[in-house]
Amino acid sequence: MNLLITGGAGFLGQQLIRALLARGELAVSNDGAARPITRITCFDQIEGDLDDARVRNVAGDIADPGMVSSLINAETGAVIHLAAVVSGTAEADFDLGMRVNIDGTRAMLEACRRAGSCPRVVFSSSVAVFGGDLPAVVDDAVAPTPQGSYGVQKLIGEWLVHDYTRKGFIDGRSVRIPTVVVRPGKPNGAASGFASNIIREPLAGREAVLPVPVDTRMWISSPRSAVANLLHAASSPSSAWGWNRSLNLPGLSASMGEALAALEKVGGVAARARVREAHDPAIMRLVRTWPDRFNTARAHAMGFVADPDFEAIVRAHAADYPPA
Amino acid sequence: MNLLITGGAGFLGQQLIRALLARGELAVSNDGAARPITRITCFDQIEGDLDDARVRNVAGDIADPGMVSSLINAETGAVIHLAAVVSGTAEADFDLGMRVNIDGTRAMLEACRRAGSCPRVVFSSSVAVFGGDLPAVVDDAVAPTPQGSYGVQKLIGEWLVHDYTRKGFIDGRSVRIPTVVVRPGKPNGAASGFASNIIREPLAGREAVLPVPVDTRMWISSPRSAVANLLHAASSPSSAWGWNRSLNLPGLSASMGEALAALEKVGGVAARARVREAHDPAIMRLVRTWPDRFNTARAHAMGFVADPDFEAIVRAHAADYPPA
Repeated sequence: MNLLITGGAGFLGQQLIRALLARGELAVSNDGAARPITRITCFDQIEGDLDDARVRNVAGDIADPGMVSSLINAETGAVIHLAAVVSGTAEADFDLGMRVNIDGTRAMLEACRRAGSCPRVVFSSSVAVFGGDLPAVVDDAVAPTPQGSYGVQKLIGEWLVHDYTRKGFIDGRSVRIPTVVVRPGKPNGAASGFASNIIREPLAGREAVLPVPVDTRMWISSPRSAVANLLHAASSPSSAWGWNRSLNLPGLSASMGEALAALEKVGGVAARARVREAHDPAIMRLVRTWPDRFNTARAHAMGFVADPDFEAIVRAHAADYPPA
Repeated sequence: MNLLITGGAGFLGQQLIRALLARGELAVSNDGAARPITRITCFDQIEGDLDDARVRNVAGDIADPGMVSSLINAETGAVIHLAAVVSGTAEADFDLGMRVNIDGTRAMLEACRRAGSCPRVVFSSSVAVFGGDLPAVVDDAVAPTPQGSYGVQKLIGEWLVHDYTRKGFIDGRSVRIPTVVVRPGKPNGAASGFASNIIREPLAGREAVLPVPVDTRMWISSPRSAVANLLHAASSPSSAWGWNRSLNLPGLSASMGEALAALEKVGGVAARARVREAHDPAIMRLVRTWPDRFNTARAHAMGFVADPDFEAIVRAHAADYPPA
């Protein structure tokens, strides 16, 4: 059984592929039986460098229908669609966001449809589909009302996944991933990137900027939990979802003050002292439209998971990415 | 000041253009001042035949970006976007629905953006954006959860209008039009078409089929009310909308039994006897997912209107379309 991970060369894709390789099998059909993973296609705009006989690294354009359809056929058991232009970039470059986040998603869905085998599709959506006049706690009944292009594009992707599923073209499910913290590597175009920067950079001995007030609260998931939840989304049977294929994932509601306290606990006073507060109105405007507390009853009942506290997230990062 | 009506050769488009010509002016900028209508471009897949010096009839493909951008420039004060593949057809021909309802809407929005003058755009959406597990009365807070491709495509159009508006590319507003009854002319591909057929055909001396039980209730608007509400949507200032550019329009909640009683009152027992009940499971399935009662408080406060009762709708049809 083959798998396709789009956006697979990103850090989350790489962690996901490593987890799949370690597992060696996945249950992607509704009989619930796990089948051996024969091949994982890692597709991204740059070629992935994970070296394993089962991994095929392919570079290309997700919005190119011909390219994408060459990656998917009747042997494709599941697609995990991570390919996306992130929030800050989608806001700054509207056309790029539309092209990758909408045209790219459509190209992937059409390729799945044409495969004719109703493959399972996991669409990585985001809490950025919420915004505007929100209740203090967002539960499973709250209507998505995105206030940024990224959130709009993700919501449109969810509805396409919903309709392709209803039509029997795919077996889709969309999971709204909390802000993933701590992202390894260099800062990226995500407006939420600072939440990772203020942990990763000080732990590595570098300075970081907090562009929002310390009482800014976010809905957060560690990379480990995000990977576990993506795999659970891929391997849970259709019957667990019903017609509603969009799901708010569990997360941790944490303020940036709590994040800095956890940093100090793990990295010491010196690490904490490397974070400087300098507000950025553009980032504050975007981030403050996202909800920071959820009641994710449906996801909990379905077996999705969250992190216990911020300190555990920082310790997991320090363990997974020890200083060089 | 120029106007563009897409889907303008359809019956609603033609009634809308006649109303605009009779009015002669429209307030489409936020100073609220009405400006004389110099030209109305009636765009559709077939050429409109309304003969007036101010009307330019153009035939073409709404999903052709080059074609659509040739219709819109800085002189375009407003676009009223009626062009769409209707519910039954969008369900039967998925690709056609995606092409016209999504690609066509995107082509129109991009042309408006490139005009650079932030034109006003009225997007005709539908109560078909609702479905699934709905409360008995749908109010302004209920989340759209469409259960058909037409509803999904309309909802995606609404979110594009929302984001293009937020970005300052257009001044958009989406109105969810109730099922329009009585449609004149021949039966079309709308799954809801029977609600018109059972009035129009018997009044013209022909037989008609009711494919759903008489207790089936629908949310209904006469063509006159639909036109009045489209014009009100085009001429209300931005400040009346705020960030939420999608609106449930007022309507009349009526059962098919009430429709038949009104038919008998206006057309007599003989007209009523021309309607035969023969259930169609495909139509029942689609129609029964649409809500039949709304609380449209927001729209009422904004000055949108509804019909008083079904008999008034039948009498208006008989007056507007007297038997030949």
